[in-house]
Amino acid sequence: MSSGTPVATAQPIDADLIARENARLAATHEEDFAALGRQLSRRGLDIEAITAKVGGFGVAVPSWGVGTGGTRFARFPGVGEPRTVFDKLEDCAVVNTLGRATPTVSLHFPWDLIDDLSALKAHGDALGLGFDAINSNTFQDSPGQALSYKFGSLTHADPAVRAQAVAHNIACIEAGRALGSKALTVWIGDGSNFPGQASLSKAFDRYIEATAEIYAALPDDWRIFLEHKMYEPAFYSTVIQDWGSSLIAAESLGPKAFCLVDLGHHAPNVNIEMIVARLLHRKRLGGFHFNDSKYGDDDLDAGSIDPFRLFLVFNELVDAEARGAAFEPAYMIDQSHNVTDPIESLIGSGVEITRAYAQALLVDRGALAELQEKNDVYLAAQTLKRGFTTDVSPILAEARRRKGGAIDPVGVYRASGYRERKANERPAVAGGGGGIV
Amino acid sequence: MSSGTPVATAQPIDADLIARENARLAATHEEDFAALGRQLSRRGLDIEAITAKVGGFGVAVPSWGVGTGGTRFARFPGVGEPRTVFDKLEDCAVVNTLGRATPTVSLHFPWDLIDDLSALKAHGDALGLGFDAINSNTFQDSPGQALSYKFGSLTHADPAVRAQAVAHNIACIEAGRALGSKALTVWIGDGSNFPGQASLSKAFDRYIEATAEIYAALPDDWRIFLEHKMYEPAFYSTVIQDWGSSLIAAESLGPKAFCLVDLGHHAPNVNIEMIVARLLHRKRLGGFHFNDSKYGDDDLDAGSIDPFRLFLVFNELVDAEARGAAFEPAYMIDQSHNVTDPIESLIGSGVEITRAYAQALLVDRGALAELQEKNDVYLAAQTLKRGFTTDVSPILAEARRRKGGAIDPVGVYRASGYRERKANERPAVAGGGGGIV
Amino acid sequence: MSSGTPVATAQPIDADLIARENARLAATHEEDFAALGRQLSRRGLDIEAITAKVGGFGVAVPSWGVGTGGTRFARFPGVGEPRTVFDKLEDCAVVNTLGRATPTVSLHFPWDLIDDLSALKAHGDALGLGFDAINSNTFQDSPGQALSYKFGSLTHADPAVRAQAVAHNIACIEAGRALGSKALTVWIGDGSNFPGQASLSKAFDRYIEATAEIYAALPDDWRIFLEHKMYEPAFYSTVIQDWGSSLIAAESLGPKAFCLVDLGHHAPNVNIEMIVARLLHRKRLGGFHFNDSKYGDDDLDAGSIDPFRLFLVFNELVDAEARGAAFEPAYMIDQSHNVTDPIESLIGSGVEITRAYAQALLVDRGALAELQEKNDVYLAAQTLKRGFTTDVSPILAEARRRKGGAIDPVGVYRASGYRERKANERPAVAGGGGGIV
Amino acid sequence: MSSGTPVATAQPIDADLIARENARLAATHEEDFAALGRQLSRRGLDIEAITAKVGGFGVAVPSWGVGTGGTRFARFPGVGEPRTVFDKLEDCAVVNTLGRATPTVSLHFPWDLIDDLSALKAHGDALGLGFDAINSNTFQDSPGQALSYKFGSLTHADPAVRAQAVAHNIACIEAGRALGSKALTVWIGDGSNFPGQASLSKAFDRYIEATAEIYAALPDDWRIFLEHKMYEPAFYSTVIQDWGSSLIAAESLGPKAFCLVDLGHHAPNVNIEMIVARLLHRKRLGGFHFNDSKYGDDDLDAGSIDPFRLFLVFNELVDAEARGAAFEPAYMIDQSHNVTDPIESLIGSGVEITRAYAQALLVDRGALAELQEKNDVYLAAQTLKRGFTTDVSPILAEARRRKGGAIDPVGVYRASGYRERKANERPAVAGGGGGIV
Repeated sequence: MSSGTPVATAQPIDADLIARENARLAATHEEDFAALGRQLSRRGLDIEAITAKVGGFGVAVPSWGVGTGGTRFARFPGVGEPRTVFDKLEDCAVVNTLGRATPTVSLHFPWDLIDDLSALKAHGDALGLGFDAINSNTFQDSPGQALSYKFGSLTHADPAVRAQAVAHNIACIEAGRALGSKALTVWIGDGSNFPGQASLSKAFDRYIEATAEIYAALPDDWRIFLEHKMYEPAFYSTVIQDWGSSLIAAESLGPKAFCLVDLGHHAPNVNIEMIVARLLHRKRLGGFHFNDSKYGDDDLDAGSIDPFRLFLVFNELVDAEARGAAFEPAYMIDQSHNVTDPIESLIGSGVEITRAYAQALLVDRGALAELQEKNDVYLAAQTLKRGFTTDVSPILAEARRRKGGAIDPVGVYRASGYRERKANERPAVAGGGGGIV
Repeated sequence: MSSGTPVATAQPIDADLIARENARLAATHEEDFAALGRQLSRRGLDIEAITAKVGGFGVAVPSWGVGTGGTRFARFPGVGEPRTVFDKLEDCAVVNTLGRATPTVSLHFPWDLIDDLSALKAHGDALGLGFDAINSNTFQDSPGQALSYKFGSLTHADPAVRAQAVAHNIACIEAGRALGSKALTVWIGDGSNFPGQASLSKAFDRYIEATAEIYAALPDDWRIFLEHKMYEPAFYSTVIQDWGSSLIAAESLGPKAFCLVDLGHHAPNVNIEMIVARLLHRKRLGGFHFNDSKYGDDDLDAGSIDPFRLFLVFNELVDAEARGAAFEPAYMIDQSHNVTDPIESLIGSGVEITRAYAQALLVDRGALAELQEKNDVYLAAQTLKRGFTTDVSPILAEARRRKGGAIDPVGVYRASGYRERKANERPAVAGGGGGIV
Repeated sequence: MSSGTPVATAQPIDADLIARENARLAATHEEDFAALGRQLSRRGLDIEAITAKVGGFGVAVPSWGVGTGGTRFARFPGVGEPRTVFDKLEDCAVVNTLGRATPTVSLHFPWDLIDDLSALKAHGDALGLGFDAINSNTFQDSPGQALSYKFGSLTHADPAVRAQAVAHNIACIEAGRALGSKALTVWIGDGSNFPGQASLSKAFDRYIEATAEIYAALPDDWRIFLEHKMYEPAFYSTVIQDWGSSLIAAESLGPKAFCLVDLGHHAPNVNIEMIVARLLHRKRLGGFHFNDSKYGDDDLDAGSIDPFRLFLVFNELVDAEARGAAFEPAYMIDQSHNVTDPIESLIGSGVEITRAYAQALLVDRGALAELQEKNDVYLAAQTLKRGFTTDVSPILAEARRRKGGAIDPVGVYRASGYRERKANERPAVAGGGGGIV
Repeated sequence: MSSGTPVATAQPIDADLIARENARLAATHEEDFAALGRQLSRRGLDIEAITAKVGGFGVAVPSWGVGTGGTRFARFPGVGEPRTVFDKLEDCAVVNTLGRATPTVSLHFPWDLIDDLSALKAHGDALGLGFDAINSNTFQDSPGQALSYKFGSLTHADPAVRAQAVAHNIACIEAGRALGSKALTVWIGDGSNFPGQASLSKAFDRYIEATAEIYAALPDDWRIFLEHKMYEPAFYSTVIQDWGSSLIAAESLGPKAFCLVDLGHHAPNVNIEMIVARLLHRKRLGGFHFNDSKYGDDDLDAGSIDPFRLFLVFNELVDAEARGAAFEPAYMIDQSHNVTDPIESLIGSGVEITRAYAQALLVDRGALAELQEKNDVYLAAQTLKRGFTTDVSPILAEARRRKGGAIDPVGVYRASGYRERKANERPAVAGGGGGIV
């Protein structure tokens, strides 16, 4: 793939189309925006300031997210599935061009690894996309891989397998440097399916030892994000099963190591915003993988199942910022789009994440803090919730519009015929599911 | 595949090997069996009667269970993976020859569907294996399938897709008749990933309508098992999400329709034995899919995570039998063997399921009923638990031995070199995982 | 308490105060209402029609809800705690006068049982309050009670205890008739704490037998609501543990028996709106106990933890109505107010329940049904969610105002000084917690 | 209560009775013990060494555990309920005299606080009971308490309340010193019921600040145990909600601060043994509160719901000891006995906890470690589980007998007539439940 790699020469969505569609919706949008502005003004809030903050918000899109996902039971691809990382970037550009909330892409190696990284970088530049954290994959066996990860990677009992996994992570850093990334995200599926299969203690010791080798290779201006997950693919124990384990590991590594919170990686009922607060306390909050879920790691579209929870997470972040916390969380979408057009789901998730942020910005934090001090429970709860019940849709649309995006991004996407074009350009992919049940 | 299909001519495990290994272990086994017999005798129990009951117990093995399973993240095959349904049956025969608890196989169509069913039947006969319930698969798209199941099968909005799914189920019945099966198990993944995606009401109505068409094609001496599952592959709603929905459907169909309980298909903390009791009350308990789980539908080896729960399920069954309930539950193992040799896991699961049954047989039901009537809570609980704390391993070994199986079935399996032989005969399979994350 | 019972002679909140406060807020409220009306009009919705429907909605307040609740660890009473059922009614009248969403009260016997029921009826009439379903309590031992419910009530092993519990339920019906109620709600805590303690089967048989005796005493124009709960106070098994058990029981009783869904009585992750749809399918949905929860039966204020779930429940109800389902669910709040002024929490819960109803009314059901038929997953989900993201606060305020209530009901409540007045009239109550840990 | 306090002059259970009952059971017990000894010997295990280790094991009994517990719905006392801490100690002595696994008592202040601590100490000495960790209670308001804990204690917004709670904890230390205790256990119910009610961050900061003041008062040879709990009595957020928060706090305090793991204080499905391993990694495992649960903090008898989980916890402890970890966990039972005679439940729990310890001692750790290194998953799991399936009842009985306890401790308890005697001596207690629903 070293020669003939495509360099994007044009944006995949016509700016004129966006402008035309926006013009059509302008009058009603502006009426709603003005009405909301007057209401917020009465509540002591400046809609312009909030719109500006919302416009400054960005969340990374995962390269794999533009392909149709699946479950162990089956995968049902759509039409126009991206074939290469270049195709993926193009789809990501569609998402950002219309939604204007996702200016960067998070790659996944070896899936996205190619020889000519400069071509990839140029492709991103041409599409106006930056490169966010690199994700290292040691939970699958790739063609040509010397040793198997069947029984683990960074925590495998065999030091040779651990060395291979460490080397892959270091290769990820190298590739990331070529692309302008500044962070490595490490998630491993290592664990066990049965009590007795593995030593819970030794596996953790090995994790710390192996990640220390990766950490040693980390450039000074990079961060490493350690991602925990309660279960799956391991079904009895997972080495980095919760935020406590993640925090121990991060603190053992050094100041460039942080914990990453994926909203779907927790036990049922867990209070995720509390975890956010605790990691902020230790100054180890690295960032988020956004998605939503009802049962397990469902990887559904952000805000689709429990939008109030998403708001409460952003409430902690806005609160921390207001209290002067020096932190810079990395935001990334991490979803599996099994039954929707991935581009639509990603646009929509950008909207929902931004919605939660905007709602959190509406909260009267001075009043809230006073009510909390007085234990005025009812009014404190109402003061917080008032942010959530406000319909901030006009702010989100306006922020998009001001950055060149669409008032109705999915509407314009459908009008653009992009998917149909790609269905013609990109060959159909067979679905199926194999015998994995 | 209609010609040249193999008909097994010899048992895959040498009976002499079993005999030799049993002879080696006989003395100590007999000492343990005798000591347990004396203890049970003091407790008013006849070890011979219990051993005979245990010897009469059988649970079906799923044809797909002899292949290595996986998750949406990856699949790591082992060596000697079965290539065809004939290979699968041979592996199942190994399981039963050594463990003597799994005399039947449950097939899965279209995975196991071939033209020459009489050859398949003959293969089973030669291996001493019967055919249990047929499982219909409408949760994947198969090559050559006209319409996609991406958005559902028996409950799809499009009547043509529903008709295709009904036709497949009827074809399963036809094939099953040729093999001597007497039951059809229907599990569908139909549901939705997002609130609003589907009408919860209409989907259920369609399910009842479609299963009624299948029911109409059911021979008089067949049963249909409806299997519910809380979630996965659908992540927001599943049409047959719980036993209540399953029961409504079964009762709407007719007297040949029953509910099947898979131990891994429930919400966290749910009391499964209570569900067993309720389905017994309505005379609609069809049977079980055995496995174990800690988080979701983990499909781990039966009894590996919560052996007491497995015992409590069997306690309800033995209790119902003692109260004269006329029921004939179908028992099947339904597991995914991701990190073990599937043959070993299936042998071991047969042991653990039989263990739970044997333990339940030890409970002094007369004393228990009296203590319950008196609300002697402590002694009632102890009376039940005494069955569980008893080490019935000698009974299980003796029941195997008397039927020609191995005292130490996995030990003999390893000594037999079966897996190594198959590794040479059957080509290696590539693992991987695709982009499903 | 038969003589000298108070009959309310005046509404507890001054109508002039409400009018004055409403006048103060009228201009901004009207601006918001008008702006929303214009937006809805563009979406094809008539704000007047929706406001009228919202105005017609009512949910019952539980008499015990106006007292401060607690946990097994402690109870911390507030000031002005109601001493008698007359006090409770007065507090309920405050809730309804201001919020205008809670015109009826649900009593709880024996807690609220007094000799002179006609005085109680007159008190309710004077306060403008009707009497909703009667709740029978057989989960506690009351002074003077002959037999203990320690080991159960309607399912107790001893027929004498069952008879006592049946008699109490029949007494509840008699008392309810005197008050104009039309329904009896039966919730029992019966179950077991340990495997073996009780026969799961026999306990259920006894339940059906005992409730049949109650059912036989039910007037023709009454309904009986069976309420299930997963756990607590029983910690291993509960006789009516889930909706499936509840449905079996209701269908065994007869056409006047229905299932009641308490939002907090389910296993983690359970899809409650699916249960609503299934009970609607069987025409056995009796009604709801509204509250919210994050962990167990937390009994928090409705909509405070997962407002989207509350919306999805109402979505099923509005959808069923739109499809012409003949049903008349009973709505009741069932919460424990441990740290708030119960009157404020009840007012607020009335608002949130009405909010969910109003949001569900906004959904374009024609468009939604079409999108569902086409499997346009993304737009279908968005079409539903658009109801939820709309800020319907102005509609709720307007519906209150038109019925004589307050635009800002809690604000007026605080301004009224009601709690301070009652703190003077009603003696302080000691808190504590006893040794229950 | 300063004068006339009882000093126990005789053991509450007649040693002769124990001896007589043991003699009656000796022959069969010895036969079972010998048979097990032979089997273990074949497995390379010395039953004498294991019996000796089991005999050396002790777990503390909570003083409140000898009274009947309850739920927020009701409490149903038994007969002969202990009236004072002296009565409680006497009941604890019955538990230990018969079961010989519970030589110490854990007190709870202010519940157990009296003026004459030397009388209490003498009472304990006379009964052969030591004093384990002191539990401070700041989750209830006690008579005469100046400030309320309704809105928190150590994390209350008001510094005066925090100071009061700190002072109580220091008073607990002082009292504990007089009794020979060496540890303080701090569990608080502080948290919030609604999003917005409290600042998650500030509450945690206050916790660290307040516990630091307590820590400063801790004698050099004492330890402080921080106990986390997911929820209840707070239903939205709890300040020390999980082991991660607990660990941060313990590490911030100093080397005498440790984390205490209550088996019932976790989210559903959580892998508790992994938490044990992680706290061992950080050398911060303080000890355990043993109980069992199916749903929430059910506080059921240890080992009654998931005995395999209890075994897996002990497996980590025995494993850590084998690896030479320098740790000394404090073991305590923490249960609520709502439907059993508390003395019987405590005796039985002592047996079950000891059973899990004995089973863990049977595991061939050398073989297990080798199998783990080789990723022989099936045999590794079986090697661990073989400890669990072994019936160690004879070892437990023998360990009791050798220390003067009963082969059948609950049988002797019933034969002793102790409860009937106390029912005569101690006045009956009224049950009930108040309006807490």
